[in-house]
Amino acid sequence: MANSPSGESVAQRIARILETFDADRSVQTASEIARRAGLPGSTAHRLTLELVATGLLDRDEDGRLRLGMHLWEVAQRGSRALRLRQAALPFMERVQARVREHTQLAVLEQGEALFLERLSHPDAVSNITRIAGRLPLHASSSGLVLLAFADERERERTISRPLPAVSRESITDPAELRALLERIRREGVVIARGFVESVSTGVAVPIRQRDSVIAALSVILPRDAPTGGAVDELRRAAAGIARVLDAPTDFFSRSTGNPSARDTP
Amino acid sequence: MANSPSGESVAQRIARILETFDADRSVQTASEIARRAGLPGSTAHRLTLELVATGLLDRDEDGRLRLGMHLWEVAQRGSRALRLRQAALPFMERVQARVREHTQLAVLEQGEALFLERLSHPDAVSNITRIAGRLPLHASSSGLVLLAFADERERERTISRPLPAVSRESITDPAELRALLERIRREGVVIARGFVESVSTGVAVPIRQRDSVIAALSVILPRDAPTGGAVDELRRAAAGIARVLDAPTDFFSRSTGNPSARDTP
Repeated sequence: MANSPSGESVAQRIARILETFDADRSVQTASEIARRAGLPGSTAHRLTLELVATGLLDRDEDGRLRLGMHLWEVAQRGSRALRLRQAALPFMERVQARVREHTQLAVLEQGEALFLERLSHPDAVSNITRIAGRLPLHASSSGLVLLAFADERERERTISRPLPAVSRESITDPAELRALLERIRREGVVIARGFVESVSTGVAVPIRQRDSVIAALSVILPRDAPTGGAVDELRRAAAGIARVLDAPTDFFSRSTGNPSARDTP
Repeated sequence: MANSPSGESVAQRIARILETFDADRSVQTASEIARRAGLPGSTAHRLTLELVATGLLDRDEDGRLRLGMHLWEVAQRGSRALRLRQAALPFMERVQARVREHTQLAVLEQGEALFLERLSHPDAVSNITRIAGRLPLHASSSGLVLLAFADERERERTISRPLPAVSRESITDPAELRALLERIRREGVVIARGFVESVSTGVAVPIRQRDSVIAALSVILPRDAPTGGAVDELRRAAAGIARVLDAPTDFFSRSTGNPSARDTP
């Protein structure tokens, strides 16, 4: 009963409405939403009304629509992203205090690197990453680490797809990519010079939980900056985050234990 | 066509499903969701299947359901919470580096203080706040600041409702609350000793954007700690955040300008 004549579910249409919002389109009219979501105007109008009633969308003073603070709240509350990000933030702050460029946390999500957190110094080198933004696995340093340690099926699927260049120096050759991934698995780090933007070098390491790599921690440096110090900082931070994630107790709840002094910068 | 016999929209039922997840129930079966959302099992089953297809819910290895990373992504991308939190984070880090307890950012949302960010020192005093958690306006230091500067209708609505005690020292008397709010408006700060937990004192100041108070910045200190230094740090940070928020350019995009050196710790 809840499906449209096209067979699409209401959940799918709601997801498409929510997906039309981003940092550059944070406020939209129902007609704009309809056009971008590819929905009939009347459908978009009715569904946005319903979403406003739930608090998942809000109306501003001019009657235009924006994502509701309640959507943010619901999405955060039970989210793995928040748990991982909370475990990582103190360690990321320490890296950021020493490296003073950009420090980033990413996970593999639907075949891309999804960035959960980014700390940036105002004078840092150019960086196209945004929080909740994505980059291709084969081009970004974070993505390369996630891809190197992904399960083999996911890895082969990515390698066998076209590998579009993000910059002039991105890896686009499957054999070259395969060799680099092998090296990342061996060395536990990647130094990606100019792969995303010619002016910058990404350095990324894996974050492990139990035996799996669940995230990548990276810094973005000016292209020709020395990388040794950053690699050491990233490895130390990744090890600290792994200890917090593997701790048996809920590390958010003070009554059941916080990360020990050893684990915390 | 999309409404149930009870007249409830699919959007409302989807919102209720998403709302059943929180930090303590981040993984649930469809039956658990049905019970907590008050939905027939078959409805919950069908809607969770549809939500998994959109990526707003995920299934874990055991077939149980959790919030999808895509929900987090969608909720972040176009969100005011992210913009405010990004503007505030460098200043919060500076407060946290000096005060070394808990530093928090909250907004007024549906009659409560909703916490967008919290930085905590591992040895800090007890603190019941969670990111994406809520506290009553009349009890928490953040809530009192938000209430003091809320529009008069919202303020009167809160004062005229029952004022339940959160701790033995919470304000529960409307006249006393009214006098405190008047004082907060005059002084631009609140020092709430034991209002939420007897062991701690909340100190909060308003964050302004143009002429409105849009958020509260607070620290949680041990009950009898001196508060003067924290008040100074909070005021300096709130002023810095206000400058970033009022800057005409998009402060996230490097090409159109970052917060100036003056604005950034």
